[in-house]
Amino acid sequence: MIRRAVLALAAVVLSACASFKPPEPRAEWAIALHGGAGVIERADMDPQTEAAYRAALANALEAGSKVLRQGGTSLDAIEAAVRLMEDDPLFNAGRGAVFTAEGRNELDASIMDGATLKAGSVAGVTTVHHPITLARAVMDRSRHVMLTGPGAERFAAEQGQELVPPSFFFTERRWKALEKELARLGLPIPKRPQGAPAPSAESLRAPLDERKFGTVGVVALDRHGNVAAGTSTGGTTAKRWGRVGDAPIIGAGTYASNRSCAVSATGTGEFFIRLTVAREICALVEYERMPLQRAADEVIQKRLTELGGDGGAIALTPSGDIAWSFNTSGMYRASASSRRAPEVAIFKDEK
Amino acid sequence: MIRRAVLALAAVVLSACASFKPPEPRAEWAIALHGGAGVIERADMDPQTEAAYRAALANALEAGSKVLRQGGTSLDAIEAAVRLMEDDPLFNAGRGAVFTAEGRNELDASIMDGATLKAGSVAGVTTVHHPITLARAVMDRSRHVMLTGPGAERFAAEQGQELVPPSFFFTERRWKALEKELARLGLPIPKRPQGAPAPSAESLRAPLDERKFGTVGVVALDRHGNVAAGTSTGGTTAKRWGRVGDAPIIGAGTYASNRSCAVSATGTGEFFIRLTVAREICALVEYERMPLQRAADEVIQKRLTELGGDGGAIALTPSGDIAWSFNTSGMYRASASSRRAPEVAIFKDEK
Repeated sequence: MIRRAVLALAAVVLSACASFKPPEPRAEWAIALHGGAGVIERADMDPQTEAAYRAALANALEAGSKVLRQGGTSLDAIEAAVRLMEDDPLFNAGRGAVFTAEGRNELDASIMDGATLKAGSVAGVTTVHHPITLARAVMDRSRHVMLTGPGAERFAAEQGQELVPPSFFFTERRWKALEKELARLGLPIPKRPQGAPAPSAESLRAPLDERKFGTVGVVALDRHGNVAAGTSTGGTTAKRWGRVGDAPIIGAGTYASNRSCAVSATGTGEFFIRLTVAREICALVEYERMPLQRAADEVIQKRLTELGGDGGAIALTPSGDIAWSFNTSGMYRASASSRRAPEVAIFKDEK
Repeated sequence: MIRRAVLALAAVVLSACASFKPPEPRAEWAIALHGGAGVIERADMDPQTEAAYRAALANALEAGSKVLRQGGTSLDAIEAAVRLMEDDPLFNAGRGAVFTAEGRNELDASIMDGATLKAGSVAGVTTVHHPITLARAVMDRSRHVMLTGPGAERFAAEQGQELVPPSFFFTERRWKALEKELARLGLPIPKRPQGAPAPSAESLRAPLDERKFGTVGVVALDRHGNVAAGTSTGGTTAKRWGRVGDAPIIGAGTYASNRSCAVSATGTGEFFIRLTVAREICALVEYERMPLQRAADEVIQKRLTELGGDGGAIALTPSGDIAWSFNTSGMYRASASSRRAPEVAIFKDEK
């Protein structure tokens, strides 16, 4: 009887050992980024647009990778990559941000340092060239974590951040998307912003890029073993009433801790706030010892989907494991590490 | 050898059983609230002030308890109790809120429903009588979770919320606290707000109430088995640049889920955001199966303290267990449930 129990125990132990896989070797550095998720399908995307997105993603990935290869910090890598995407009108962040119902570009961004849990965040800024850099200044040079609206802009001016007129962020295709969305909602169409360029023939041909959450975000691991995460966005087309989504909310759109992982998310922000998506993925890694990919899938494929939210997230551990998960038909994404060649993908059927 | 191993195993199982305590019976309803934490010491508090705080806490507790006893929802109980504290100048929420460096009262609040994970939040409103009621309207009557600044006020007006002139929130002792703090920081003292009453002899004698985080918050369990949490605050004296603390951040100052617990926090908000305090306490309950009090102590006494933050939190489970934890010398607090008589406490040495 006792002997049989011991044999059964031994069988359990042996089978556990048999299913054990040695972990992949630790990466010296790693990076993953996204440029938004949503209804992104091959059939709807012409080859030039697809090529432009792939080039922009590869470009931002290389900017971040270069910092990390050379021994720079994960925070510097994130800032470098996000700044490029903020300047690229393809993405809904910085130049190319969507418009509010009042016809303004109100930008949100956040950044978090996994080594110290320090964080910085800004919401509703309209004249700051690089919201991600302002979020970093909030983290590094204020007592605060989150600054909003005109107050955040006064801080930006005091810090000597690069300011631009609001019309700097204007793009024709986002304006057209606003007009269409406001018509659908039965809301009045605001006056074209002061300083906006006259529509060109080319800009009028540009695709509308609807049904996408074009937030950008980067997670990185540096050679010092520190992870970090950053996110930047224009929010959602025709947002009203000073709406803030998940991108500037620590724990929702952005989270990083060396104890677990770093995450940047993109999607219908309200659901990401309610599920504290970024913290949740890392909590499953930290407390439930889930592998990163399983944790990301649990939160995005299961919980987010059950609640009715759309979008995705990228994540990365201090060992350099990288995961992404999205419940939409596509997510602009890219990754690289000291042990993995650069990879750029858009559609769901890409690995 | 085998026999010895089996005996050792039996000993482990027996000792685990011996330490097992049957859970307390489930409460039919329960409520806990706080009116802020900080340097609150017997020696500094005159009997009248202490009596006034105890009466205000008992009053808000009874308002919430009454809703719950009569079968009302946890959300209604929270709103009822928070509204009373927002109207009481003793607390740093609604009337009695602290001033920004520019001499304004900028109010933040949030509420979350543990049954549905729905949430509503407002930040930086200056003319809304009851920020907690506006946060609830955001949850119930908009597609959004978080609204900020003038946009949130436009939404309030559209929703027929009760609006007041900014001077409604003016109190002499908060103004004096602002003047003192700005002098300490070497910042200019703004003009006395338009509409503020002239200082009376009595108001000039009122204590400054410094070094306290007078945020108010309530967690509740109703007879339907649903938990919820709500928080309301004026933030920190002399806050600048549109600073937002943890109170309106879902996962930081407020969190509720029927899967784990409901939490409202108060303290140096920046640290609470970085630690996602409210979600973290509930994550330890959900994933680590920690008893509620241990989870609250782990986050407040250990992690918050190690990071250098001050403050506390109240928490409650769907079984009606109640916990509070703070690393300051006092926290205004109160609790009651269907199985526990009302309890009001201020100082650390009270149970």
